[in-house]
Amino acid sequence: MCSVDSERLHAMQIGLIGLGKMGFNMRERLRRSGTEVLGYDPHVNSSDVSSIDALVEALPPPRIVWVMVPAGAPTQETITHLSQALSPGDLVIEGGNSRFSEDIHHAKALDARGIGYIDCGVSGGIWGLENGYALMVGGSEEHVDRAMPLFDALRPEGPRSEGFVHAGPIGAGHYSKMVHNGIEYGLMQAYAEGFELLEATKLVENVPAVIEAWSRGTVVRSWLLDLLVRALKDDPELSGISGWTQDSGEGRWTVEEAIRNAVPVPVISAALFARFASRQETSPSMKAVSALRNQFGGHSTSRADAALDQVKAAAR
Amino acid sequence: MCSVDSERLHAMQIGLIGLGKMGFNMRERLRRSGTEVLGYDPHVNSSDVSSIDALVEALPPPRIVWVMVPAGAPTQETITHLSQALSPGDLVIEGGNSRFSEDIHHAKALDARGIGYIDCGVSGGIWGLENGYALMVGGSEEHVDRAMPLFDALRPEGPRSEGFVHAGPIGAGHYSKMVHNGIEYGLMQAYAEGFELLEATKLVENVPAVIEAWSRGTVVRSWLLDLLVRALKDDPELSGISGWTQDSGEGRWTVEEAIRNAVPVPVISAALFARFASRQETSPSMKAVSALRNQFGGHSTSRADAALDQVKAAAR
Amino acid sequence: MCSVDSERLHAMQIGLIGLGKMGFNMRERLRRSGTEVLGYDPHVNSSDVSSIDALVEALPPPRIVWVMVPAGAPTQETITHLSQALSPGDLVIEGGNSRFSEDIHHAKALDARGIGYIDCGVSGGIWGLENGYALMVGGSEEHVDRAMPLFDALRPEGPRSEGFVHAGPIGAGHYSKMVHNGIEYGLMQAYAEGFELLEATKLVENVPAVIEAWSRGTVVRSWLLDLLVRALKDDPELSGISGWTQDSGEGRWTVEEAIRNAVPVPVISAALFARFASRQETSPSMKAVSALRNQFGGHSTSRADAALDQVKAAAR
Amino acid sequence: MCSVDSERLHAMQIGLIGLGKMGFNMRERLRRSGTEVLGYDPHVNSSDVSSIDALVEALPPPRIVWVMVPAGAPTQETITHLSQALSPGDLVIEGGNSRFSEDIHHAKALDARGIGYIDCGVSGGIWGLENGYALMVGGSEEHVDRAMPLFDALRPEGPRSEGFVHAGPIGAGHYSKMVHNGIEYGLMQAYAEGFELLEATKLVENVPAVIEAWSRGTVVRSWLLDLLVRALKDDPELSGISGWTQDSGEGRWTVEEAIRNAVPVPVISAALFARFASRQETSPSMKAVSALRNQFGGHSTSRADAALDQVKAAAR
Repeated sequence: MCSVDSERLHAMQIGLIGLGKMGFNMRERLRRSGTEVLGYDPHVNSSDVSSIDALVEALPPPRIVWVMVPAGAPTQETITHLSQALSPGDLVIEGGNSRFSEDIHHAKALDARGIGYIDCGVSGGIWGLENGYALMVGGSEEHVDRAMPLFDALRPEGPRSEGFVHAGPIGAGHYSKMVHNGIEYGLMQAYAEGFELLEATKLVENVPAVIEAWSRGTVVRSWLLDLLVRALKDDPELSGISGWTQDSGEGRWTVEEAIRNAVPVPVISAALFARFASRQETSPSMKAVSALRNQFGGHSTSRADAALDQVKAAAR
Repeated sequence: MCSVDSERLHAMQIGLIGLGKMGFNMRERLRRSGTEVLGYDPHVNSSDVSSIDALVEALPPPRIVWVMVPAGAPTQETITHLSQALSPGDLVIEGGNSRFSEDIHHAKALDARGIGYIDCGVSGGIWGLENGYALMVGGSEEHVDRAMPLFDALRPEGPRSEGFVHAGPIGAGHYSKMVHNGIEYGLMQAYAEGFELLEATKLVENVPAVIEAWSRGTVVRSWLLDLLVRALKDDPELSGISGWTQDSGEGRWTVEEAIRNAVPVPVISAALFARFASRQETSPSMKAVSALRNQFGGHSTSRADAALDQVKAAAR
Repeated sequence: MCSVDSERLHAMQIGLIGLGKMGFNMRERLRRSGTEVLGYDPHVNSSDVSSIDALVEALPPPRIVWVMVPAGAPTQETITHLSQALSPGDLVIEGGNSRFSEDIHHAKALDARGIGYIDCGVSGGIWGLENGYALMVGGSEEHVDRAMPLFDALRPEGPRSEGFVHAGPIGAGHYSKMVHNGIEYGLMQAYAEGFELLEATKLVENVPAVIEAWSRGTVVRSWLLDLLVRALKDDPELSGISGWTQDSGEGRWTVEEAIRNAVPVPVISAALFARFASRQETSPSMKAVSALRNQFGGHSTSRADAALDQVKAAAR
Repeated sequence: MCSVDSERLHAMQIGLIGLGKMGFNMRERLRRSGTEVLGYDPHVNSSDVSSIDALVEALPPPRIVWVMVPAGAPTQETITHLSQALSPGDLVIEGGNSRFSEDIHHAKALDARGIGYIDCGVSGGIWGLENGYALMVGGSEEHVDRAMPLFDALRPEGPRSEGFVHAGPIGAGHYSKMVHNGIEYGLMQAYAEGFELLEATKLVENVPAVIEAWSRGTVVRSWLLDLLVRALKDDPELSGISGWTQDSGEGRWTVEEAIRNAVPVPVISAALFARFASRQETSPSMKAVSALRNQFGGHSTSRADAALDQVKAAAR
């Protein structure tokens, strides 16, 4: 159980670059805790300063700057800019959805100028403002200690160990978040398959009610289940929802890392592939299977128009 | 929100056949609610009566008898016995892990003698005594209404809709529970794959701490995650746990039903197959793959003794 | 190497019920070998007799009647009819795509009247007329010996062991054919995934040519590969082929049997599920995943119309 | 249909670096065709020259040098050495199992010195000496034309298009070979699952005979099937074969590329994961699943010793 060092917290002042869905709410949660936050985002009216340089200028050293911009080029460019603008003794926390393998490059670039680095995986989505954000961080003991008041302000209430972890050296935070997201893919797909199977049988008359009944006392109760209950209350047959499902980098990286470490991940990969397939109007694989069946089977032709006929017939 | 009809509940008296891990605790939870329970189990000292016939004799009609014995022959035999021993107007609730397809047979056998039937999937395991049991039931409106005080006593506290559902006609309760368990397989495997991947990297220094940090604020928080945290507190490397994993009927039935309904269930089936594989000392499939590689590859022989050498070498 | 007993063969006279895609060509192949065949099919003009009874009448006892009609009710009805029409000492060969578990019922019904039974899995499709049909049979040694001239006439040229097997007692023939088809699903899907991956990269400029180059000398060469080469010669981008892919009973039964025997079949089941998914206009599973992402993520809405916009944008 | 330019072929003289299982036989096949080959391998007595430099010295320019050494560092070092030792106008053919992404680096390093480059995926294993090697190449039209006599000498007899392809620019050869190997994983696993299922049933009395019967006329006939028949003739129950199965880089790269291109590859990935799992004495995943079951289920403990008891009991 931790006791938050509130005096130190109140004295804190930080910079926050990126005021998108995540950063905007994080600024608000930090402010509620008494932290002074200077937020900057070139695309957002509510920026507190007009540029990264102005942000750096306004913060008294030693500074802490939290970076919360999209992974890839935007994060890379922000880190590069900060490596020039900040001073030795400052500290950067990279809280975006970067691949863990990027962290070592970011840390090196900053370290060359005497600037510290922490990578931080942040979970919580739009619910984080109220519920708090779960934080997985990588970096040195010294840097993590220094930023702890921020982590305590952002994380959910309750024991520190239940919403925060210093997972290891640089990269370990994003690695942990990556695996978290990989698991998330598997969990969502498991619920989704169960939902589809309930929908497929006539025996079960009220699928949303069955799923809601799993909310308490069952083995499958979870926050994701609660969200599914909510979604089904909004739209009991999900008729307004498309099956077209995006995937983020973390799911892919999880499977790549599994392959690199020879770890079998049949469930996480199946969930990832289901998303790939959801975005295909037609599957080239299945065209090949269908073509093979035509070749050997004299199977009733499944040329596109014939298939269309069958779909139409089935719809009647 | 429901209000339990406590007067009616207090007056209730039921029979409960089967005092195993589930039935024993359910009797206790029912008694705490004020229900009078006559429990019977031939293998348990704490039986309240000495036989099914004595149990029937002791209950005033119209009776409710809850059957909580192993699926398959024991349930079948108990239902058959009850169809002889009970009277028209009585009601049987079958709460075991039966396949939903059995329910229609049980219901018919009882209906021929004027006896009612409800199938009830019960979730909650050893935690049900304190937390309550989630209940998914199938049967007629009339029978379900009659047994509602029992369901209210057994289910978790809170709104009735969050731990109880009348899912549909006979069979719908066990069907819903079957799908629940299928989902459970997928969820467990998703966490397990994530755990293995965290263990496989040197970057993450304290795997149990990472998993505990997911307890609040994350997308993957759930009761199963809490249990994983507990298990890792007991045994941080799970060194005392075997990978040998049993599967119950529900996981298999879920995949069978998915096939019958042409529903793709890549995640639930992968979780099931992982359990099958966990119980194989050697995989005949992989012997065949290995034999093929030997044939075409001139791959370094992987005959059993050579493989042993490699395992030993790897262990050094 | 077997030597066909050609004298015995020439004397043979059999009945063949079912002159569809398979039966029609089998009659032709049998006739080319010198066998006298009386074919009957109520839906086919080229029937040699006008009814099953007429067919039985026309054959001198002890008779052999080959049944080659669709699995399920048509086969069941034909067997029932034959159990009445045939005489003790006659022999029925059931060559359709029946589930192996049906065979024991068919055999019993016939045996009660002194009539023998062989189940025979037949592979070869429309190519069987020229190439011969591979045959997997179940039944008694005595019955199989008696029908051997037919099997020799139908099977491919070459050693008998390379296109024919007496796999075991009744049911073993259809069981072997079922597993054959399960494997076929996996093989087709493996080629199909490779095809899709080649199509997905710009690096490979001529996908059909790459696949054709695998025809000789490679590890993946096979008859199915040859058919894929043919299909791509007809239609290099498979543009006239739909991805909508039917599945037959055997694929499903294979996975069911695997589950019953606790055999992990990740590849065969994945191939089966891919076919299920190919027939869904929208995936309820993926709608559920998408709905969950909307709930927690503030992910850009993927409601149906928005998705449509994206698809359209991608198509530009 | 090609006609080999035999005069040009006879005049050809090439260097071949790497005389392992593949290179040794390729030298032999090239010599049988009349090509003069100078082979070099530091670890092989039968080297024709004593060093790479001696090999380069002995060949008249413009030279062709075929590199056939293990992927990774050995190939990298050989290319680097050749970039120094060869002269403008020479040509290097890289025939090892390199990742396609390496080719562009190799080509650049050589091109800087005016040396040409072809990447060549080679399939055929130990059977290639007699059957020929299937070749998939990437590079410029000019270079491929120049090396064609070598390709014609190495590839299987028959039409050039059935054992050789110029797949595209540099990298396309190794890419095609990578996909070939990914498919190979899926094919092998499909046969293996079918084998295991046949072994699991008592109904089929002679599994090797069933598989042999698939050799002709069936949909699943293939070269891999022929090899499985051979393996089962050597050892009908594969009792001398371990299930421990290595995987090569290509299987992993195939899944990585599929992920990069958002191509669903459930079958190829399942085959890869089955190999990973085959090398685990204990599965950390399944320990986690087992630990979870213990937590919620009061499931009969599956601690390691208890599991051992069950395995022993099952073995009785």
